[in-house]
Amino acid sequence: MALFSLVADDLAAVNQRLREALQQHNPVVREVSDYLQEASGKMLRPALVLLAAQMGDAARLSSDVIDVATAVEMIHMATLVHDDIIDDAELRRGLPAVRSRFSDPVAVLAGDFLFARAFQILAGTTRPPLVDMAAEVVYVMATGEISQHLDHGRIASEESYWRRIEAKTGFFLETCCRLGATAAEASIPVRDALGRYGHHIGLAYQVGDDLLDWLADPAVLGKAVGEDIAVGIYTLPIIHGLEHETYGRQLADLLRTEMPDLAEVRRLLEVSGSIDYCRARAQGHLDAARAALADLPDGPRRDELIGVADFIGVRDH
Amino acid sequence: MALFSLVADDLAAVNQRLREALQQHNPVVREVSDYLQEASGKMLRPALVLLAAQMGDAARLSSDVIDVATAVEMIHMATLVHDDIIDDAELRRGLPAVRSRFSDPVAVLAGDFLFARAFQILAGTTRPPLVDMAAEVVYVMATGEISQHLDHGRIASEESYWRRIEAKTGFFLETCCRLGATAAEASIPVRDALGRYGHHIGLAYQVGDDLLDWLADPAVLGKAVGEDIAVGIYTLPIIHGLEHETYGRQLADLLRTEMPDLAEVRRLLEVSGSIDYCRARAQGHLDAARAALADLPDGPRRDELIGVADFIGVRDH
Repeated sequence: MALFSLVADDLAAVNQRLREALQQHNPVVREVSDYLQEASGKMLRPALVLLAAQMGDAARLSSDVIDVATAVEMIHMATLVHDDIIDDAELRRGLPAVRSRFSDPVAVLAGDFLFARAFQILAGTTRPPLVDMAAEVVYVMATGEISQHLDHGRIASEESYWRRIEAKTGFFLETCCRLGATAAEASIPVRDALGRYGHHIGLAYQVGDDLLDWLADPAVLGKAVGEDIAVGIYTLPIIHGLEHETYGRQLADLLRTEMPDLAEVRRLLEVSGSIDYCRARAQGHLDAARAALADLPDGPRRDELIGVADFIGVRDH
Repeated sequence: MALFSLVADDLAAVNQRLREALQQHNPVVREVSDYLQEASGKMLRPALVLLAAQMGDAARLSSDVIDVATAVEMIHMATLVHDDIIDDAELRRGLPAVRSRFSDPVAVLAGDFLFARAFQILAGTTRPPLVDMAAEVVYVMATGEISQHLDHGRIASEESYWRRIEAKTGFFLETCCRLGATAAEASIPVRDALGRYGHHIGLAYQVGDDLLDWLADPAVLGKAVGEDIAVGIYTLPIIHGLEHETYGRQLADLLRTEMPDLAEVRRLLEVSGSIDYCRARAQGHLDAARAALADLPDGPRRDELIGVADFIGVRDH
């Protein structure tokens, strides 16, 4: 069964809604808006909204659910466009980032108008907590990133790493599940279970991302390898590797050089067991995500949520 | 009577609410948040919300009105922080801009968390259109600025100038008035009259700003003179000056030089009558703003709105 197949039609509706929301009369702005839609992503966040909504009590998915799924994708797009400014990134999803294709100022403004449109869509829904929940995601991400950015280049502890990825991804994916469940009028225990599930797949997803920064084929990933460390961000593989008795010092020496040999960094992460450690931690969160679903009614809807966890465990981009 | 004296207590409540909304536990983020509050502005936007609300039918100002006034000031702060990135500005309100004090990435994120908090505050109000109205302001400003930015350095027509300042300031001040009136349950004709008033003082305010870029004492203004033209933005004095039969060519030649003599630019704007033209246009919008209030009940509340128009006509920073 293909991923997200139960909500394939709804995802198509989300894409349609997204196109409508980004339609522009001004030709200059349209160029930016069209470009934003070109490099479309995996649609993980809207899919989580839709899948979580299927566990709710509402007889059928309301238009609120489609709206919320659209809004979270727009919020995600906005944060990516802004993140690329912050990380000085050239590529995003295999295409030049908005800031490279246009400029940093245009990227700042494009993120702002995506945020604005997303909140307008949420404001049109019939359930007031949705705006607050989505805005809290933006707030937690932005303040979390400020904290990371001002600590830039400092070697992070593993504890601060987990705090950081919770703010960046765990809380967002948790909220996607909660938003879908809330929009579909699920009971509080179901919302909580789905929230826990989202939290854990979020952390697993982010650890996976940070691993892919070292392991992926750049052509498949759509960006360069070792990009995080190049901009001074210490992710879990490096943090763990630096603590290794034998290889930690070697790794530290290597990272202090002007242009670290990235193939050698990767070799040290392998032999120090850091890659394996990260895989195991990600796996642990995926297990916890599956466990969070234990009390939900079984059937194809729950199976699809489990399928998302399985996918996160094996993805290569 | 001092400006905003009728709503002085409410403005104090807005300041208090702002401090609460920006409170931070994380010391790194707190440093940014505290800095945002240091360079506080004229509070024109929250004052308009409060003054417009006084024309409403609600027996007394609800907490919604304070919330809306706080949210519009946060949205304004967010756009200023982002604008300084876009315009490469070093100073804001006489202090180093957030981007100069910290960095461009921190400024991107600080703007984002201000937007997020503002929408959370609006989401907590009891009137759903408020979120949509405020988000529309952000949307119109951001798309308007994208259009301006991608036209950067091109000599704008007067028509495109008015369109641009409507997107940047006219629509925002109009919406402040509408938000206050809506939150205070004013009748539709009253909301419309206040909206027209806000629109016209917004345009007058922005023309005034663009004049002050040439006329103000830099120490009073808190930033350098001639900053707009230095970053390739053609405002009304320049647009008008370039069309002058005698001095237009001189001005064009001057602006083509590497480092234009700003005192000479200013002199040409004087002798060409461009400064006077801008003053007259601003005055026309202030007259239209006062006229929009004609059908509202007279008394100290309406007088204070007229006082704001008077203030905009004479301000020097």
